[in-house]
Amino acid sequence: MNRSALIDQIFLKKSFLCIGLDTDISKIPEHLKKADDPVFEFNKAIIDATHDLCVSYKPNIAFYECQGPKGWISLEKTMKYIQDISGDIFTIADAKRGDIGNTSKMYAKTFFDYFNFDAVTVAPYMGQDSITPFFEFMDKWVILLGLTSNYGSQDFQEIINETGDKLYTLVIRKAQQWGNPSNLMFVIGATHPESFKEIRVLANDYFFLVPGVGTQGGDMNSVVTNGRNAELGLLINSSREIIYASKEKDFQDAARAKALILKQQMSTYF
Amino acid sequence: MNRSALIDQIFLKKSFLCIGLDTDISKIPEHLKKADDPVFEFNKAIIDATHDLCVSYKPNIAFYECQGPKGWISLEKTMKYIQDISGDIFTIADAKRGDIGNTSKMYAKTFFDYFNFDAVTVAPYMGQDSITPFFEFMDKWVILLGLTSNYGSQDFQEIINETGDKLYTLVIRKAQQWGNPSNLMFVIGATHPESFKEIRVLANDYFFLVPGVGTQGGDMNSVVTNGRNAELGLLINSSREIIYASKEKDFQDAARAKALILKQQMSTYF
Repeated sequence: MNRSALIDQIFLKKSFLCIGLDTDISKIPEHLKKADDPVFEFNKAIIDATHDLCVSYKPNIAFYECQGPKGWISLEKTMKYIQDISGDIFTIADAKRGDIGNTSKMYAKTFFDYFNFDAVTVAPYMGQDSITPFFEFMDKWVILLGLTSNYGSQDFQEIINETGDKLYTLVIRKAQQWGNPSNLMFVIGATHPESFKEIRVLANDYFFLVPGVGTQGGDMNSVVTNGRNAELGLLINSSREIIYASKEKDFQDAARAKALILKQQMSTYF
Repeated sequence: MNRSALIDQIFLKKSFLCIGLDTDISKIPEHLKKADDPVFEFNKAIIDATHDLCVSYKPNIAFYECQGPKGWISLEKTMKYIQDISGDIFTIADAKRGDIGNTSKMYAKTFFDYFNFDAVTVAPYMGQDSITPFFEFMDKWVILLGLTSNYGSQDFQEIINETGDKLYTLVIRKAQQWGNPSNLMFVIGATHPESFKEIRVLANDYFFLVPGVGTQGGDMNSVVTNGRNAELGLLINSSREIIYASKEKDFQDAARAKALILKQQMSTYF
């Protein structure tokens, strides 16, 4: 999906909600566990209940990998289901990949060609040649880790260099030499609301994927106030708060209700 | 595999060779492509031809992922075959993972529980809680990216902080607060031979996994001279140079011949 189509969807739906499909087989409702493919059945139910409220789904790849080949089949079916139900949903493989050039190319093939995701999250530690192979795919996106939502983000991302710049600001600046606002976004955690203003100045035209609202403690209003740009420029993710809103038979309704609250809050910013 | 068992194997075999199974279906000999599972048949042949010369195999996970569920089945069979042929081979999932705590835990489960690898490569950008979940598994190892072999390593890893330390030295020092020489190694690329002396001082008792000898231009002798410790403390990886030594029917013999040259050079250091 290209940049203008994504922006159109956001303004059409008055939503910039991304729903994280961190589907943990041990946390899904009991009655689904008897199904042939419980992970897919759960995802399908969540997608049915929420696809009109969000603009994006973000399967967290670790949760599929840990089931071995079966998990990859669940992921494949989930991706196909999203595309069948709507051609207008932006799909993100939350995979945090990054390796030397020939290997990053294989990861890009996996998520862009094999699974047909629109975007993949990428870790910057290995630098230019670990990131640029992902840019070789038309209308596909790198979502590069900038300032993440977890407490470990302070260990290395906030290291200050000789000229007074923090590592994450160097990552955000340097990556703009390799990508552009039509194929590059940044992950900026909602748990750092004070940083959004400064980061928006560094990367005015770029989308930010924002995890950490809800379970991790981030506040949507301060993120939007400090982080939005003219095209809105934000995808705010919620995973566990929506998909595990209930562990009973009413999980679909509960997920929709949680997603609706977020979507309604979002619609006030348009 | 624990630390003393790994050291025993290295001294018994007089080898610290790790063979990278970066098995690209487009690069394997034509006659194997007709097999039901060409990737596994290729790996099996390479393992048969080389397991007495190396102490470790390192499947590069990207090359399996890009085949979808089929690739994970090839990986599963490869891991089982390595364990059947010898209980004494150290297995490394070259996966460069790392995410918030609950997700890193899933990656740890994938590689340690599901596939039964001894070690997994981990990217440090997200800090402490992205790394420590991997330490919760007995006799399993984190191999953390320190100074990588690719040219992009200079982009962020060599950034100098206010006290004059490079990012990769901060990573190597800080990670020792979370792990120890029995569950933590570092990736140090052979393309930086001048850095091995300084890094050895920072982490005297730790193993280094060293990619970049051969195809990427690193020199084994300078790595060993500058980087060894009392227990040898190195796993030197070679991937493409060995496994693609020939693309014809003689690929097994050619792979063995290349591995033997490296193993013989290594045996002179004991």
